[in-house]
Amino acid sequence: MRIGVVGGGQLGRMLAIAGYPLGLEFLFLDRSRSAPAGQVAPLLEADLGDRARLLELASRSDVVTFDWENVPVESLRGLPCPLRPSRLALAATQDRASEKRLFERLGIPTTRWRSVESRRDLTRALQEIGLPAMLKTRRLGYDGKGQAALRTERDADAAWERLGAAPLICEELVPFDSEVSIIGARSVDGATVFYPLCLNTHAGGILRVTRAPDGRARLQRIAERHLARVLAHFRYVGVLTIEYFVSAGRLIANEMAPRVHNSGHWTIEGATTSQFENHVRAVAGLPLGQTRALGHSAMINLIGHMPSRARILALGGVHLHAYGKEPRPGRKLGHCTLVAPTARARDAWVRRLLRQLAPDIRIP
Amino acid sequence: MRIGVVGGGQLGRMLAIAGYPLGLEFLFLDRSRSAPAGQVAPLLEADLGDRARLLELASRSDVVTFDWENVPVESLRGLPCPLRPSRLALAATQDRASEKRLFERLGIPTTRWRSVESRRDLTRALQEIGLPAMLKTRRLGYDGKGQAALRTERDADAAWERLGAAPLICEELVPFDSEVSIIGARSVDGATVFYPLCLNTHAGGILRVTRAPDGRARLQRIAERHLARVLAHFRYVGVLTIEYFVSAGRLIANEMAPRVHNSGHWTIEGATTSQFENHVRAVAGLPLGQTRALGHSAMINLIGHMPSRARILALGGVHLHAYGKEPRPGRKLGHCTLVAPTARARDAWVRRLLRQLAPDIRIP
Repeated sequence: MRIGVVGGGQLGRMLAIAGYPLGLEFLFLDRSRSAPAGQVAPLLEADLGDRARLLELASRSDVVTFDWENVPVESLRGLPCPLRPSRLALAATQDRASEKRLFERLGIPTTRWRSVESRRDLTRALQEIGLPAMLKTRRLGYDGKGQAALRTERDADAAWERLGAAPLICEELVPFDSEVSIIGARSVDGATVFYPLCLNTHAGGILRVTRAPDGRARLQRIAERHLARVLAHFRYVGVLTIEYFVSAGRLIANEMAPRVHNSGHWTIEGATTSQFENHVRAVAGLPLGQTRALGHSAMINLIGHMPSRARILALGGVHLHAYGKEPRPGRKLGHCTLVAPTARARDAWVRRLLRQLAPDIRIP
Repeated sequence: MRIGVVGGGQLGRMLAIAGYPLGLEFLFLDRSRSAPAGQVAPLLEADLGDRARLLELASRSDVVTFDWENVPVESLRGLPCPLRPSRLALAATQDRASEKRLFERLGIPTTRWRSVESRRDLTRALQEIGLPAMLKTRRLGYDGKGQAALRTERDADAAWERLGAAPLICEELVPFDSEVSIIGARSVDGATVFYPLCLNTHAGGILRVTRAPDGRARLQRIAERHLARVLAHFRYVGVLTIEYFVSAGRLIANEMAPRVHNSGHWTIEGATTSQFENHVRAVAGLPLGQTRALGHSAMINLIGHMPSRARILALGGVHLHAYGKEPRPGRKLGHCTLVAPTARARDAWVRRLLRQLAPDIRIP
């Protein structure tokens, strides 16, 4: 069985590495021959919206999935094999406005927000929502791109200048105690599994550290209920992620991603079945695997600069995942993980590692 | 960094899958384009002794290793990049007679044995060693191939008829309580690591089940001492395995393999660093990883017939490794593993699985 994957970044690369032991084959479509996945599997070189190449990918595959949610939805219409997750789920998560509406419709608390299509809309939105607020493009935002924080009235002009060419949303900037994410999967026959909640530390809009399990049983229950609703709504097949702010003990959904997620990379070593294997199992129509945490895990992203392989591997018990990308400021080049017997031991270990690998990052 | 691998079987396939997360690239040489490793990495199609293709492999790689110990040693002479492990280690383990001599020289107890080059040698050997005995080809034996058990004088004629064309050894058939193996690795700078002893169950000369850790601390200490001597003797780089009989509490070396070993497949899920990753780390000149067992593991080989993927993955907590090989009687097509919290829970689980996957196999 061959899985076609639209997008050949590090997520696709890790899907292939997880699927090979199951005897599955992979074929990727990516703009760049040197994309991370192209180093471990065959790759068709074309724009992700190239209809002819998408048809070729699908005709050579038994099922098509994607590792990047900004694939043009129209170009995925009527493929000669199943697309999992579906175009409907993909479309809903490509647009922050439809994502917010879905959260509201499914009773998932989210930030207060307004659609912004003019400078006047923005003024009105700020009156209704108040300051501080966030202005975000409805589409194509990731890793803090396409966003501006509005702390005073005067920030609005500069933000509008920078982002106003595209449809936007304005949302309240929620004061939060922590950020968490829930990752789960749904199989073709409707079975679902959920991973323990991930506790995330961002800097400059980019995820830097994840620790899991978060351990707050009440939040886990609530997040699983939310995710189950989204999965059922779409009759979803594959892995899906919701990111939250935790504010005064409440979960407030920030965004979701119809794919494996950076905050779930710890599951490769830290859970019975990784998020990558479960996504591959789901889209291949196979039974899902157990999601139990094997200890107390942490994941540290390697951003912009890659320490030498030997230096990281000399750190006892640390697992390296290098994506085969050229270094560039702000670029995710790899990550490393560790599994400790207790949360306390894990956090102490993370602090030691951060001093060596990313001294600018602190975990609470 | 690219690792060239001579031989593209399931061991090579698992080396690549283990090396990809480290950002390493692979190039294989194998007789068959459809070899297991060729499904996950680029492959040169040629006979393993094809000097021109070996030179091409080496010129396109930073280091060359092998996943099969019967590569013609002469053809590996003077490659344009390092060969790890060395030709010396490879040569010594290709020939059962030189292997036995090495065990004796390093003070590693082994079976009593005689070199057999004529029918008359065989008669004399049987007089000195007694019955029952084993007659084995000195070269190219694996999975019980090239062997005959001699239980009576009359077995000798048939065995000679079948095997006598090649140089042989005759050795005592040791009555054993159990079979174990020790797997370890040595890095370029001479550091060594050892995995917990593996408890192996064979049937028809083929490994069927491994459980680890074996747990007998005294045997672990002795086996590590033996393996350390072999590693030091060759200034070995990579993973090496010694297989033993345990007879009345004593370790009696049966044979060794200059490579990752079927009895170490449990380390993928069951140890901090797998044998595959440690071999790749060693030959790439990187620091070795920790070999601690993460629980009580078992590995069950899938031989001759492959159960459906869905059926195995529906067994909660079971990990599948399919090698992408065509089914054929006696052929190793894949394996599955499990990790349990106690040895007792593991053994009960293994017995349940064997009833489903290999009802002819019993574990003690």
